[in-house]
Amino acid sequence: MKTFEIITESDARTIDRGATVALASGGHVTPLARDTLAERRITVVPADSFDASLPADLAPTADIRRVAIGNDHTGIAMKTAILQHLRGKGIAVQDLGTATTEPVDYPDIAALVARTVARGEADAGIVIDGSGIGSAIAANKIHGIRAAMCTDETIARYSREHNGANVMTLGSTLLPGNDAAIRIVDTWLGTAMREARYIRRLLKVRRLEQNPE
Amino acid sequence: MKTFEIITESDARTIDRGATVALASGGHVTPLARDTLAERRITVVPADSFDASLPADLAPTADIRRVAIGNDHTGIAMKTAILQHLRGKGIAVQDLGTATTEPVDYPDIAALVARTVARGEADAGIVIDGSGIGSAIAANKIHGIRAAMCTDETIARYSREHNGANVMTLGSTLLPGNDAAIRIVDTWLGTAMREARYIRRLLKVRRLEQNPE
Repeated sequence: MKTFEIITESDARTIDRGATVALASGGHVTPLARDTLAERRITVVPADSFDASLPADLAPTADIRRVAIGNDHTGIAMKTAILQHLRGKGIAVQDLGTATTEPVDYPDIAALVARTVARGEADAGIVIDGSGIGSAIAANKIHGIRAAMCTDETIARYSREHNGANVMTLGSTLLPGNDAAIRIVDTWLGTAMREARYIRRLLKVRRLEQNPE
Repeated sequence: MKTFEIITESDARTIDRGATVALASGGHVTPLARDTLAERRITVVPADSFDASLPADLAPTADIRRVAIGNDHTGIAMKTAILQHLRGKGIAVQDLGTATTEPVDYPDIAALVARTVARGEADAGIVIDGSGIGSAIAANKIHGIRAAMCTDETIARYSREHNGANVMTLGSTLLPGNDAAIRIVDTWLGTAMREARYIRRLLKVRRLEQNPE
């Protein structure tokens, strides 16, 4: 992939239609070039942020349209609030329960959500239990899942950008309320993993799944 | 196992030496009985907190004497502070690196610590990376490991009591400092998992390791 320090309008006309090129750190795209790049459907990525040798399915889906959500008996109200919020934004949400206050075990709920994401039936998963700790442990046991307990928006953002999380867990009894939970969910869903230096490390996580002893 | 509402001194004399008995919720042990129980090495556990059908190795070691610790390039200062603190308390600490600011990948460090704990070469593990998120994901890929990102003392305590965490991860750039990290570590190491209703769920986590698809 060709790397540019600056992309001018005449550069933009020489790049193949639909190609991806890299822009060096501190590099610049002229305003006129920007229009030409868009018209020619050329993608510009920061240099060192794309590595063609990495499997295309390594980083999680950036554009999340289908979410699987599950909760234990402590998380019904929070689940309902998040579900309504996401459906209101046009995201398809698969509700995997539980719907009653009858106690359920977090490994069961976490595995249900994690397997739905691992099979590609959802782009991302959300699991709610009392603290979010146990569901993160359980979900990470499923191959292809990178689950992060998100206690605030910073952790939510990092877990996507740096760690490619495809499942988030929330603590129904530890978070200050449903509004806070929704803000954390929105931050998480709205953050993509783009940098090759981070994506590369997911290969090492995947290798651990093949050598779990 | 016999369950008592009250244990008197004469009860204590009738219980087999070295036996374990249960005390009902709200139950009482008389002061005299307490001495006799101790002398006869009888263990009293809260009712419903012990289930003989659960594997003995399911809950993590309560009395942590050997700790494995590892860190990425961002966590050297925090690792050193924790290590000195724990050694000062008489805990054996195995330092698995890294020792330099040369970048290392969190899955490598997390796997090193996790495998040391899984093999029984340490009672518990501590992994430090920038946020603690990635190391928790990676460590949980190792069979027998329950890794929790500990952002504060509450999470640290819950992760042991409720989820039987045997690895904790810390964020070098997110925690307010080394003193905060040490408080979180002390809370985590000092909390045991005792309740059967929580321990039972670890069986389900273990089963996910055998069915990770």
